[in-house]
Amino acid sequence: MVRSVDLNSDMGEAFGRWTLGDDAALLRVVSSANVACGFHAGDPSVMMRTLRTAAEHGVTVGAHVSYRDLAGFGRRFVDENDGDLTNDVMYQIAALEGLARAAGATVAYVKPHGALYNRIVADERQAADVVRAIRTVDPSLAILTLPGSAVGRLAEQAGLRVFREAFADRAYQPDGTLVPRRQPGAVIADPAAVAARVTRMVADGTVEAVDGTVVPVHADSVCVHGDSPAAVAMAHAVRDRLTREGIAVAPFARAAAEA
Amino acid sequence: MVRSVDLNSDMGEAFGRWTLGDDAALLRVVSSANVACGFHAGDPSVMMRTLRTAAEHGVTVGAHVSYRDLAGFGRRFVDENDGDLTNDVMYQIAALEGLARAAGATVAYVKPHGALYNRIVADERQAADVVRAIRTVDPSLAILTLPGSAVGRLAEQAGLRVFREAFADRAYQPDGTLVPRRQPGAVIADPAAVAARVTRMVADGTVEAVDGTVVPVHADSVCVHGDSPAAVAMAHAVRDRLTREGIAVAPFARAAAEA
Amino acid sequence: MVRSVDLNSDMGEAFGRWTLGDDAALLRVVSSANVACGFHAGDPSVMMRTLRTAAEHGVTVGAHVSYRDLAGFGRRFVDENDGDLTNDVMYQIAALEGLARAAGATVAYVKPHGALYNRIVADERQAADVVRAIRTVDPSLAILTLPGSAVGRLAEQAGLRVFREAFADRAYQPDGTLVPRRQPGAVIADPAAVAARVTRMVADGTVEAVDGTVVPVHADSVCVHGDSPAAVAMAHAVRDRLTREGIAVAPFARAAAEA
Amino acid sequence: MVRSVDLNSDMGEAFGRWTLGDDAALLRVVSSANVACGFHAGDPSVMMRTLRTAAEHGVTVGAHVSYRDLAGFGRRFVDENDGDLTNDVMYQIAALEGLARAAGATVAYVKPHGALYNRIVADERQAADVVRAIRTVDPSLAILTLPGSAVGRLAEQAGLRVFREAFADRAYQPDGTLVPRRQPGAVIADPAAVAARVTRMVADGTVEAVDGTVVPVHADSVCVHGDSPAAVAMAHAVRDRLTREGIAVAPFARAAAEA
Repeated sequence: MVRSVDLNSDMGEAFGRWTLGDDAALLRVVSSANVACGFHAGDPSVMMRTLRTAAEHGVTVGAHVSYRDLAGFGRRFVDENDGDLTNDVMYQIAALEGLARAAGATVAYVKPHGALYNRIVADERQAADVVRAIRTVDPSLAILTLPGSAVGRLAEQAGLRVFREAFADRAYQPDGTLVPRRQPGAVIADPAAVAARVTRMVADGTVEAVDGTVVPVHADSVCVHGDSPAAVAMAHAVRDRLTREGIAVAPFARAAAEA
Repeated sequence: MVRSVDLNSDMGEAFGRWTLGDDAALLRVVSSANVACGFHAGDPSVMMRTLRTAAEHGVTVGAHVSYRDLAGFGRRFVDENDGDLTNDVMYQIAALEGLARAAGATVAYVKPHGALYNRIVADERQAADVVRAIRTVDPSLAILTLPGSAVGRLAEQAGLRVFREAFADRAYQPDGTLVPRRQPGAVIADPAAVAARVTRMVADGTVEAVDGTVVPVHADSVCVHGDSPAAVAMAHAVRDRLTREGIAVAPFARAAAEA
Repeated sequence: MVRSVDLNSDMGEAFGRWTLGDDAALLRVVSSANVACGFHAGDPSVMMRTLRTAAEHGVTVGAHVSYRDLAGFGRRFVDENDGDLTNDVMYQIAALEGLARAAGATVAYVKPHGALYNRIVADERQAADVVRAIRTVDPSLAILTLPGSAVGRLAEQAGLRVFREAFADRAYQPDGTLVPRRQPGAVIADPAAVAARVTRMVADGTVEAVDGTVVPVHADSVCVHGDSPAAVAMAHAVRDRLTREGIAVAPFARAAAEA
Repeated sequence: MVRSVDLNSDMGEAFGRWTLGDDAALLRVVSSANVACGFHAGDPSVMMRTLRTAAEHGVTVGAHVSYRDLAGFGRRFVDENDGDLTNDVMYQIAALEGLARAAGATVAYVKPHGALYNRIVADERQAADVVRAIRTVDPSLAILTLPGSAVGRLAEQAGLRVFREAFADRAYQPDGTLVPRRQPGAVIADPAAVAARVTRMVADGTVEAVDGTVVPVHADSVCVHGDSPAAVAMAHAVRDRLTREGIAVAPFARAAAEA
């Protein structure tokens, strides 16, 4: 039996003079790249560079769509009305898809970024706006979200393909949700421990929660970070461990891209 | 013999709370709409609204691409390096094309806006950047420019289709160029006079210059304005006169769109 | 006994190529101008023009501070963290005060704009951020807000002077709050009726609520609008009626400016 | 005889999520900090942080004013008309001065940034716009520029104090101008060589040009960079060498600040 899992990471989050993360290193590790579309990061030159490198490495691309908020890096909730949110998301997807075609890369999914990602776990209206945007601009795109999210449920009802992700370096609660970042122990810093957790998620479909409970976790993709040298090293540790365990790293959304 | 000419006008130049021009009125007059793509005007909601209305009226859409300069409305030359200019233009075209597909509209050409339009009449490097952007993102797009421009020449060399435009309300010099805006008499304010000039451009291929000289003018399209009630009235006067003379108003770029 | 009231209105809400409202007309009507500071509207040239005209007419200036959101015109709640909100408000006040000195105008108060105005009626944390910004950058500035707001209470506790405003054309509920805009009858369109209501507010300190109840209303200032020709006409009607009743229109914040 | 020289460096060029340079380290080296004002870099939180740290270290602050161009980091010429350029510069100075007062720091001079800095070496109109901005918003501010620049000459004619700077790590031509960046040898990478050159500039008022010629150089201030760890190390090397030679590092603009 061949087992595989997708690793995804945020990418192309430079802007103009400013850089962020080591995309070139990360693109050797992950199978899916969440590429910023200009609203929280990623000017057109950054986008083209990221898309070309993703194409070279055969990495699948996701549209990392955001509220329009460069100054806040998309990390602040913005109470956009439904027309504006839908159209802002459509614009970002459209721009990325057009550039991706020019770069020889394939956009296969949408992963909302930052505050928007968190918001539409529960906010039904904004979740519906994002679903409507994807359906209107390109219904062949999948969406990558948390298990149990409002946006996942609405996307499925709308006929979109939905994939769920887990987080490599985050602690889980017994109910399967993440330990909030403010709490101690929310983030796991040891690369070997993280690599072992990811392997267990894929091999057994479980993760050990903070209280020792064994919790089922279904992950089409595992999110790894790349915004620091330590993060890149951890991503490498995860991939190396998966490889040693005979688990392939492959894009969850390949079928989507090829459909 | 059926004669026809295209009328084009700038459109979708609102932004957020701010409106500009009467697009709904203009879309009943013109056959081609130069739609702002977000860099000098036109947020995604404005773009979608404009594209949907253009589709309803069967008006062909052009990408009205600009330097990134909302505060200056794209009217200030920006010395962008060639990578950034090429990528900025590609991003705008990609975004508009994606939204247009969602709105049922067709993007058939590119018309650079404002300072960029003027710059690439003579600046070979920036002209080449714009040509490269079009070729890379969608070589089926035509370009609309001034007769004799650098960008027109380079676009033809690159295999793009090039269309030339004349200006309904601008005075011409004996050499066929426009009288600069600062000079007295540069802009013609009388709707009947403007309508007569446009008719003569189409019927005879000539225009009377400021010194009385008769100058040949080849216009695939005639640009009319819509940023004031008087401008909309003038556009109507032009169209009415053309219709009375048996000259149809039809998009120059239809072939492109249908190819 | 000489009675007087302040009339305030939003001003300087153009941006680049886009205009909004008829500031020149309004500055003949009001005694206080809420001037946009660049974050929701108002580029530096618009600000200088507005400040110079305010100075000519002897109109007192307030800093109309906003979330950083040009595309949303400051009408969308943005969940800024406390450092960023405080610093954003300070920056806007500082910029306006510096330009006002150069223009010969006086900034005497702060009136938060749009979504920020509404948010800090109840949100204690963001209200405290705005109060901290004013205290840090210029504690001589007053704040103009709704009666009963969190920001008013916190500003008084912090030693700032607080002034309350009523709305000329808005219907009131029996508890003294405004009828929400979505409800029918929320906005009063008849200039004569509006003028009579404002006069009663000033002369009797009361307003008639939607159910006929007479409600006490304490207004240091009355807000009038100017974003349409009808709005300007209504503002004139209010001022004319006040003048006929022997009520002077004078800035509430004059003492502040002269202190 | 006590000799001294000013060292200046760009500072506060982070924006939102993005960082740039090591301001904390540089503020221990330089005597003057050119602080970004929000148009090419530097959001209000970055500005306040930089100003507070500058105040702690007793470093004098200059307004690092720029064209409005975040995406281009102020490094692209923008053909702003004279009203807009003047007002944009005034706005930036006003914002920085207001925040500096709140932070306990002193703004003593203006140093134009990037493309604007280079442009007004020769462009008389834009140079006059910058001079007008400084005179209008705060004529007590000095200006820091290249020897022989148009802006320096116009500023002196307008009664502003003008200071000239040299560049620590740039090669000079026999006529006293800089070797253009594109040419080989334009930038000197060896910290010891750079430290020796700066010491000679101060002690002897000369620099050795690329052809070996000894060229007089008058520097009220020497510009050092801090946008990389190597740059910070070089700045330290310069300061250490000056100290060993008995040359104090002190702000050129102190008199201005105290006047």
